[in-house]
Amino acid sequence: MTDTLTTIGFDADDTLWQNEHFYKLTEGRFLELLDEHGEHEVLSSRLLEAEKRNLALYGFGIKGFTLSMIETAIEVTDGQVSASVIAEILAAGRDMLRHPVETLPHVRETLEALAAEYRMVLITKGDLFDQERKLAESGLGELFAAVEIVSNKDTDTYLRIFAEHGDGPERSMMVGNSLRSDIVPAIKAGSWGVYVPHALNWSLEHDEEPLAAPRYRRLAHLGDLIPLIGEIGDGAA
Amino acid sequence: MTDTLTTIGFDADDTLWQNEHFYKLTEGRFLELLDEHGEHEVLSSRLLEAEKRNLALYGFGIKGFTLSMIETAIEVTDGQVSASVIAEILAAGRDMLRHPVETLPHVRETLEALAAEYRMVLITKGDLFDQERKLAESGLGELFAAVEIVSNKDTDTYLRIFAEHGDGPERSMMVGNSLRSDIVPAIKAGSWGVYVPHALNWSLEHDEEPLAAPRYRRLAHLGDLIPLIGEIGDGAA
Repeated sequence: MTDTLTTIGFDADDTLWQNEHFYKLTEGRFLELLDEHGEHEVLSSRLLEAEKRNLALYGFGIKGFTLSMIETAIEVTDGQVSASVIAEILAAGRDMLRHPVETLPHVRETLEALAAEYRMVLITKGDLFDQERKLAESGLGELFAAVEIVSNKDTDTYLRIFAEHGDGPERSMMVGNSLRSDIVPAIKAGSWGVYVPHALNWSLEHDEEPLAAPRYRRLAHLGDLIPLIGEIGDGAA
Repeated sequence: MTDTLTTIGFDADDTLWQNEHFYKLTEGRFLELLDEHGEHEVLSSRLLEAEKRNLALYGFGIKGFTLSMIETAIEVTDGQVSASVIAEILAAGRDMLRHPVETLPHVRETLEALAAEYRMVLITKGDLFDQERKLAESGLGELFAAVEIVSNKDTDTYLRIFAEHGDGPERSMMVGNSLRSDIVPAIKAGSWGVYVPHALNWSLEHDEEPLAAPRYRRLAHLGDLIPLIGEIGDGAA
């Protein structure tokens, strides 16, 4: 059977370990610091605007987020923000870069079980340096045949990675928490797309569920992945 | 001959295109902004201290440099720096991220000539996102069989890359402007190390020239690379 699954790609942030949680905590600190300069909801939306505006220059990751927080602090205070508040924002960014890596439930045992039979590739975006730190701290590194830290995840990304590290997209599966980055482009590339939603998802990662796609699946948590792969092997879709 | 050269690794910043030049220009803007808070030499050394201190958290690249400038501005003014100066530093960082890519003399013709005969790999560190932008803008991307953007360049980096994309380090050469990152670790891995100094080198990239190593060479500019490879093919070292 030419379509037998051989390769599984995994997203990292909020698929294997907590991530958005730390952004939310830091945003909370940011809002407290600027409390007197606006409603939290307004400050949050100004910050999101800055992040969107800067995405083409900064890409994804904590350093760009920190720079966008500083920029927003200057804007919402009409240039009156004190250096001590800026120093607090810098410290909050550094704390994020040091946060401990917490793997999500079912992750370790699922990956360990699958690694014996499948070629597993970590496919993540964000700061190269920070992603490498988290992978090292997670202790999951040796389970992956390859690690691809990319600046963006589109259909071409999956075509290239599943050709290079696997037997093409038809024999590959992508597992992740972002419909926009992990699931929709992987399915367009011809792979399976397995959506494992996380309670916190960054608003820029939303997209429609591709419910009509025969290779789309949605799981409650990563512990359901091995049963799903069993079904697929039995000829589903 | 088992040691025939098949693979050439190239550093990017200040080997293929200008880079440190833009850091120096930006540092100049930074020093002007803080003119009244100290001698330029003192301010520069405070900035370098911050960069060193933050390297383990931020890694290499413009975003980390911008954050270190902001931190230094707060420190050297004892927390009195105005938000407008911080805004200027943010703008200077964004300008760096947009700077035009200027390939260095002899680069394009040398790479085009070598690409027909050798497997060429771009091996660079820094912000993933920014390095991808520069490679795309340089128009050199298609000359490389592989692009490796790494967080650090040590002996293991070259062992891995020249195994994965070449025929092992013995049949590979690394070309770059940093003794510490490009030359010394590549030679330790067993490769040729070809040092092409740039007029501006970041102080953290200095190292001793490995003059006693048989596979060490130093060139005045990249235009001398093809003649050197000819000599090596004739059995030098």
